[in-house]
Amino acid sequence: MWSKGMSDIKKVVLAYSGGLDTSVIVRWLQDTYNCEVVTFTADIGQGEEVEPARAKAEALGVKEIYIEDLREEFVRDYVFPMFRANTIYEGEYLLGTSIARPLIAKRLIDIANETGADAISHGATGKGNDQVRFELGAYALKPGVKVIAPWREWDLNSREKLLKYCEERNIPVEMKKGKSPYSMDANLLHISYEGINLEDPWAEAEEDMWRWSVSPEAAPDEPTYVELTYKKGDIVAIDGQDMKPHLVLETLNKLAGANGIGRLDIVENRYVGMKSRGCYETPGGTIMLRAHRAIESITLDREVAHLKDSIMPRYAEVIYNGYWWSPEREALQALIDQTQNYVNGTVRLKLYKGNVDVVGRKSEDSLFDEKIATFEEDQGAYDQKDAEGFIKLNALRLRIAAGKGRKL
Amino acid sequence: MWSKGMSDIKKVVLAYSGGLDTSVIVRWLQDTYNCEVVTFTADIGQGEEVEPARAKAEALGVKEIYIEDLREEFVRDYVFPMFRANTIYEGEYLLGTSIARPLIAKRLIDIANETGADAISHGATGKGNDQVRFELGAYALKPGVKVIAPWREWDLNSREKLLKYCEERNIPVEMKKGKSPYSMDANLLHISYEGINLEDPWAEAEEDMWRWSVSPEAAPDEPTYVELTYKKGDIVAIDGQDMKPHLVLETLNKLAGANGIGRLDIVENRYVGMKSRGCYETPGGTIMLRAHRAIESITLDREVAHLKDSIMPRYAEVIYNGYWWSPEREALQALIDQTQNYVNGTVRLKLYKGNVDVVGRKSEDSLFDEKIATFEEDQGAYDQKDAEGFIKLNALRLRIAAGKGRKL
Amino acid sequence: MWSKGMSDIKKVVLAYSGGLDTSVIVRWLQDTYNCEVVTFTADIGQGEEVEPARAKAEALGVKEIYIEDLREEFVRDYVFPMFRANTIYEGEYLLGTSIARPLIAKRLIDIANETGADAISHGATGKGNDQVRFELGAYALKPGVKVIAPWREWDLNSREKLLKYCEERNIPVEMKKGKSPYSMDANLLHISYEGINLEDPWAEAEEDMWRWSVSPEAAPDEPTYVELTYKKGDIVAIDGQDMKPHLVLETLNKLAGANGIGRLDIVENRYVGMKSRGCYETPGGTIMLRAHRAIESITLDREVAHLKDSIMPRYAEVIYNGYWWSPEREALQALIDQTQNYVNGTVRLKLYKGNVDVVGRKSEDSLFDEKIATFEEDQGAYDQKDAEGFIKLNALRLRIAAGKGRKL
Amino acid sequence: MWSKGMSDIKKVVLAYSGGLDTSVIVRWLQDTYNCEVVTFTADIGQGEEVEPARAKAEALGVKEIYIEDLREEFVRDYVFPMFRANTIYEGEYLLGTSIARPLIAKRLIDIANETGADAISHGATGKGNDQVRFELGAYALKPGVKVIAPWREWDLNSREKLLKYCEERNIPVEMKKGKSPYSMDANLLHISYEGINLEDPWAEAEEDMWRWSVSPEAAPDEPTYVELTYKKGDIVAIDGQDMKPHLVLETLNKLAGANGIGRLDIVENRYVGMKSRGCYETPGGTIMLRAHRAIESITLDREVAHLKDSIMPRYAEVIYNGYWWSPEREALQALIDQTQNYVNGTVRLKLYKGNVDVVGRKSEDSLFDEKIATFEEDQGAYDQKDAEGFIKLNALRLRIAAGKGRKL
Repeated sequence: MWSKGMSDIKKVVLAYSGGLDTSVIVRWLQDTYNCEVVTFTADIGQGEEVEPARAKAEALGVKEIYIEDLREEFVRDYVFPMFRANTIYEGEYLLGTSIARPLIAKRLIDIANETGADAISHGATGKGNDQVRFELGAYALKPGVKVIAPWREWDLNSREKLLKYCEERNIPVEMKKGKSPYSMDANLLHISYEGINLEDPWAEAEEDMWRWSVSPEAAPDEPTYVELTYKKGDIVAIDGQDMKPHLVLETLNKLAGANGIGRLDIVENRYVGMKSRGCYETPGGTIMLRAHRAIESITLDREVAHLKDSIMPRYAEVIYNGYWWSPEREALQALIDQTQNYVNGTVRLKLYKGNVDVVGRKSEDSLFDEKIATFEEDQGAYDQKDAEGFIKLNALRLRIAAGKGRKL
Repeated sequence: MWSKGMSDIKKVVLAYSGGLDTSVIVRWLQDTYNCEVVTFTADIGQGEEVEPARAKAEALGVKEIYIEDLREEFVRDYVFPMFRANTIYEGEYLLGTSIARPLIAKRLIDIANETGADAISHGATGKGNDQVRFELGAYALKPGVKVIAPWREWDLNSREKLLKYCEERNIPVEMKKGKSPYSMDANLLHISYEGINLEDPWAEAEEDMWRWSVSPEAAPDEPTYVELTYKKGDIVAIDGQDMKPHLVLETLNKLAGANGIGRLDIVENRYVGMKSRGCYETPGGTIMLRAHRAIESITLDREVAHLKDSIMPRYAEVIYNGYWWSPEREALQALIDQTQNYVNGTVRLKLYKGNVDVVGRKSEDSLFDEKIATFEEDQGAYDQKDAEGFIKLNALRLRIAAGKGRKL
Repeated sequence: MWSKGMSDIKKVVLAYSGGLDTSVIVRWLQDTYNCEVVTFTADIGQGEEVEPARAKAEALGVKEIYIEDLREEFVRDYVFPMFRANTIYEGEYLLGTSIARPLIAKRLIDIANETGADAISHGATGKGNDQVRFELGAYALKPGVKVIAPWREWDLNSREKLLKYCEERNIPVEMKKGKSPYSMDANLLHISYEGINLEDPWAEAEEDMWRWSVSPEAAPDEPTYVELTYKKGDIVAIDGQDMKPHLVLETLNKLAGANGIGRLDIVENRYVGMKSRGCYETPGGTIMLRAHRAIESITLDREVAHLKDSIMPRYAEVIYNGYWWSPEREALQALIDQTQNYVNGTVRLKLYKGNVDVVGRKSEDSLFDEKIATFEEDQGAYDQKDAEGFIKLNALRLRIAAGKGRKL
Repeated sequence: MWSKGMSDIKKVVLAYSGGLDTSVIVRWLQDTYNCEVVTFTADIGQGEEVEPARAKAEALGVKEIYIEDLREEFVRDYVFPMFRANTIYEGEYLLGTSIARPLIAKRLIDIANETGADAISHGATGKGNDQVRFELGAYALKPGVKVIAPWREWDLNSREKLLKYCEERNIPVEMKKGKSPYSMDANLLHISYEGINLEDPWAEAEEDMWRWSVSPEAAPDEPTYVELTYKKGDIVAIDGQDMKPHLVLETLNKLAGANGIGRLDIVENRYVGMKSRGCYETPGGTIMLRAHRAIESITLDREVAHLKDSIMPRYAEVIYNGYWWSPEREALQALIDQTQNYVNGTVRLKLYKGNVDVVGRKSEDSLFDEKIATFEEDQGAYDQKDAEGFIKLNALRLRIAAGKGRKL
């Protein structure tokens, strides 16, 4: 069915950052599998130039080099659909890393199909979730593809061995100044930090670790107000100005980051079975979650809102565990998207030193009815006497049970 | 079965605040039902003296007057069990009003049983959730009880009519200075505001409405650190000092309120079918939610944590809708409480101008295993090669489907 | 907002069966509300002629008489969508009554709009679910409609009073021979029985109560085999012969009824808070449920199947409680329908004396892969060694917990 | 942490049936690991003598031989708790194989602890669920245990190779007459069949495959009635006679098997990612499921029943996938068991040619209230007018939405 032998690999597409680790992987793949390597480098908003990856790949003898700007696609087709569900993993985490992986997996497979490659490769380790997300996506989109995960195969499992390997093979090792000692991942939605002192969950993260936001202490003493306009559950304008999805997120990142918003420090449960401690900055996303709930609060039916809340943890798990490319994600998405037809309107927010406060929401599709909700005389819009029957019948099963002597 | 006639009511227990509305109700019950009224006034941490209610009740001719301090019971048996589930209604609301009602309902029924009363009464209106919560609780605990809800029955549906009623009957009307124009409810967990300008969801709440917290702007410029110690999911000590449940909450309310923490402004879906806008201050509760998740993050198994998350929305709905006294709440509570056996340890938090940041967590029951999670060499604690089989089998169903030509 | 007065009703559309009760209602409406009555009688497969209702309505002075054959619409747009979810209420009940009500409600409102009626009326009692289903549907489709539920209003609450009312007003009372003493409801999906001796849950239903199926004892001694062909989750052919939805169900009803299939005797929980005992015959539906699960068993992804199973109880509750016309039903339906794209193929069944046994299933969209599932040598389609890693990582969290001394 | 080397294995406990496969495993373990083998053979009602396993083990040089009758423990502590939840996997499967594995896993670990063994071994293949169930259980109960799964390791992957291995090593090969060609598993709850012609899902199972039940055709022409008495959700008596759990199940197996009850033919989704076709006979279990639902139908609160239904699919998945020994199963069990306190009473069933029909149910804890449910005059037990308010408030959100122009 699916060949399992690795010996026959002729061409492999590698998710290539241009950094040391994936540069070593290029050479290691060439050496170990005696195969051609195609590199794929994408701008998904990680905040680093991608074009320099071209020269590095060329220097390593790579002939097919893909460098792409995927920021718009990333936000439009992955981030926004996820936020329609108010998605949070384990009550806290906004899935910033998880949501970027399916896009990378998809492009790896697209490129494998275009270039006739029979394998893909990535630089994720054997302990994390990302290997799972890359590989589940790859298998789901191209079931016969071979996957090479060097970190699970090679013995270059320390910094020293890696550097020695480079030296022996003349792979240039840039010593970036100010390079973070943390294991990091970044895209338009977030930046993450793991390792070093964070491996002790009792240790507070150091202030100079954070990169995308100022601390609340350092944020301005005056609040910033912002209005977000929604259409079918997605933000289409900021302060009245229409914007493409990725510009929405870039703008919110700046606003939020400047106001000390979006830091998170958690211990999470990985799909591979261990707990890990991570710190995250999700500036724009933190605003988006609050704002989306706010626009839904006036436009969504109660039972639909509760239904969404009840399936959200499952949806978050699906994404966290790497099953974006799965029929269950598609089924859940069908439900979620169907609910967003009337999620239109504007939310007004106050940003101040780490706080995102919803201070107003309005919509032509609002289900908030002042005539009914009012404490004032409602002109008969609501008959208070109906409440008695409502309560009586809802109490009936409880009364029968109590009448039979059952104790609560 | 249960008599429905109201004519035969002899004695009614009233949830009596001592304020104007419930004072009018005392007289109205006496006049309308020609029955004896028993008043019940409880200190559940609303921040007002309860003892003055005695003289007022006496002045109205009440002979059986119950005044009780229920703060400890309230936090120990209602607030704490609810927080074990990380309970939030509609993604935002900490259920501050909802959780106090079942205790009041229970005491009303206890007192009805002690005094031989055949009815209970309350001052909640016919549009809100509280009537439902009081009455469902009452019926569940004493199925044959009669319930009198004056606001659904009488025609005193405006301030003017109420005042005229008082004048005609010589009920003293104190004009409190500084009385809030909002409809409010308070207990140790929170204070709520509804009505007036809040009836427009686009209007920002006014700063002088808030009573229990300073604004983030007015909070100290230096952060406050605090350590909370958990035992079986409940906080038992603050900064190493053991405290009873209600003192825990009082202490946290002070800490949080002083640091601008716990304000919330939402539009929520009432059980009676309408949307309403409310503002809430839940200072201590806001800390408790973050801290409880943090202690669970290192002590709870992943699947148990996810299971809890998946049933939480249902549990929140049960409480919000007034079904604390129900077999489904008991069943859910059995699951929740069973999961808290190892939820022990300490959480360290930074409070600063509206922000609650978890900065550390530790526990002798921690499931966080540094040896496995580390980015460093793990001495063979985890075999990275296992990941390949894990991914391959998890991908199998997806590969089979893709192999059959299914598109994602 | 919505006028609550009844005095101004000018025209009412009545769900009219032509039987005694609804004939009385025609007259009672005319007398009580001094309004015009429009009758609506539908053939939804109840097994009785609907045309005779015309003369009866005319005799009562009704000028606008609607008589419609809704069988195809009923099965295509209500029954089939419901069966896509394998819907069962409380583990047993196939929702035969529940699923017909939304169609009736919809037509009542359509006709109200066509005839300019301002109210609708029905003959359901105040204790049952059907009043809820009719009225929720009506309000959801036409929020300002008035609803008249005579059984909740009048005092004709005994057979004697009804007959006396008829006598006084010259309403002809046919004494049908062989009329069942049970309270019954029938449509193409099922027939139900309540009341009389069934009110004792310990009493066995009498054989001569059942009308649509022979007993298993009386069924043929030879089995009947039948093949059902599915397209997108719906049956489109029986034994290779294409059929419209309602003919599918009629055919299956005959096959099943002749083989003693589809009887059910349960105590169920009504939405209005009481338990009630009902007996049901759902001959074709009983086959459809088994067969649909069978075709899904080879064509549906595992996680999608489990997701459907997890939301099914909620979906059943929505329908049972009368919320077909609601946004939450639409959201759930979006998920359900999305999953049925590949639910194509054929199921072979053996019908024998009350038993429905699936004996074969095949599909061009089958995900059953003999090469992988086989006990024989699989040519490397599946690498058994992958299982070790799969198990090891799935066990990791359990091993860590056990290693920390936790007991199970 | 946990040693991964296999070279240091000194003693292994093997789940030993006494059959050819596990006899070969004894020798293979001795040869391959040069270790001592402890055999464990249990009577869990599979219907074969276990004592003969002793001589066979002795002949293979085994010194520590465990032979145990676990029937009572199996039904009391595993089968009964599972049936309290009305557990079904994928709408059809009663989990007969799944539920026996945790008991075997537990005893393997108990014996490993008693004998100082450092490993366990089993005869399950690398494609099935049972390897997962054995090993997850073992790791959860003894995290440092080593697991040897010969079928994943050796190359004896065909009948011929196995027989050759036996011949070379003088392992006696009995040729049982009438040995089934199917892959089978049996215990008190069920017997299963896989392989051979069943690998084609379109092929009907052959009549002579089935072993524990007569066909409906061959069952008696007269029905059998039986009464089951429940206490806290478990059957404690049959036809008024008290019985221990395993005798209950044995008795029901006989009754059901004689009446052609309990056959099932399905395609199921394995945890390891493939679909497989299996046939099952679960005679007594089929009765137990119907009967348990029936006793719950009169004794369980509606919302509790629905809550149980909503978590059941998750609970079934937990058991099917092998997580009996997990904290999530314990949490779910806590909820389930808590609901069974009033599940007492008697169910009357009619067994006839494959059919299990509930014909009566009664209980001193019944919540069925004839006075309220009756179609007759109810003496005011239920006020039909309450229904109007109930419906009106439940309709409110739908009316508001429709009033705003939303279409359904």
